[in-house]
Amino acid sequence: MTEILTDEHYMRQALNEAQIAFEKKEVPIGAVIVCQNRIIARAHNLTETLNDVTAHAEMQAITAAANFLGGKYLTNCTLYVTLEPCPMCAGGLLWSQIPKVVFGAKDEKKGYSLFSPNILHNKTSIISGILEEECAFLLKEFFRQKR
Amino acid sequence: MTEILTDEHYMRQALNEAQIAFEKKEVPIGAVIVCQNRIIARAHNLTETLNDVTAHAEMQAITAAANFLGGKYLTNCTLYVTLEPCPMCAGGLLWSQIPKVVFGAKDEKKGYSLFSPNILHNKTSIISGILEEECAFLLKEFFRQKR
Repeated sequence: MTEILTDEHYMRQALNEAQIAFEKKEVPIGAVIVCQNRIIARAHNLTETLNDVTAHAEMQAITAAANFLGGKYLTNCTLYVTLEPCPMCAGGLLWSQIPKVVFGAKDEKKGYSLFSPNILHNKTSIISGILEEECAFLLKEFFRQKR
Repeated sequence: MTEILTDEHYMRQALNEAQIAFEKKEVPIGAVIVCQNRIIARAHNLTETLNDVTAHAEMQAITAAANFLGGKYLTNCTLYVTLEPCPMCAGGLLWSQIPKVVFGAKDEKKGYSLFSPNILHNKTSIISGILEEECAFLLKEFFRQKR
């Protein structure tokens, strides 16, 4: 129960990042990376702002966390992200050796879990559905306003 | 035949980039992106130098090419890379909408082609085996010296 509350707490921080993306007219996805109960990286999708398809929240968070730690492996970290990672981000997470990934909403069309074998390491702990409705609502609202 | 010669020409440029990585003690993988017969981005693996697992040659080349073009889609471009892309890089290439990917050596352990469904778009033209031996030799030599 404590862990679920903790996961919700950090997912809310990722949601804050998604909200910032929303306000910048970016597809609203946010991420944070936590190491020993401390947020060491915060990021949100910036593909439009940076004109760069690789600027997903997770990719920026991986780079920022490694920079903070002074090493490229995130072996004691957890990533929280509002939407299920795509294959690019899952591939980056695999290389980072991160042991735990928590996501909010499922991505039925482009999520990494549509692919086999598993793009993430089989030992990576995956938790999904944390604040799922809020994470999904922000995305739906974004695409509704875009139409 | 002309196209194969052209592919070899650009792959040699990617090999030059891989050689630069080799000299920096990076896993020697290089890439170039070509648009209308012009190289618009050159990159090599910098994961050690930048302390960043996302700094693969292809990822940097995607970012650099988009920066050069002033737009995030690489719809008229070809990527040349010395080793088969991993899922992260294939995912990035999918987002970039690049129509053609040419690689040298096959990555039997971590290549994107081990996954299904296809991580790249099914309409993406894939050519493999261009300067394969030279691309693979540089990698083998790197890991031989490391032992």
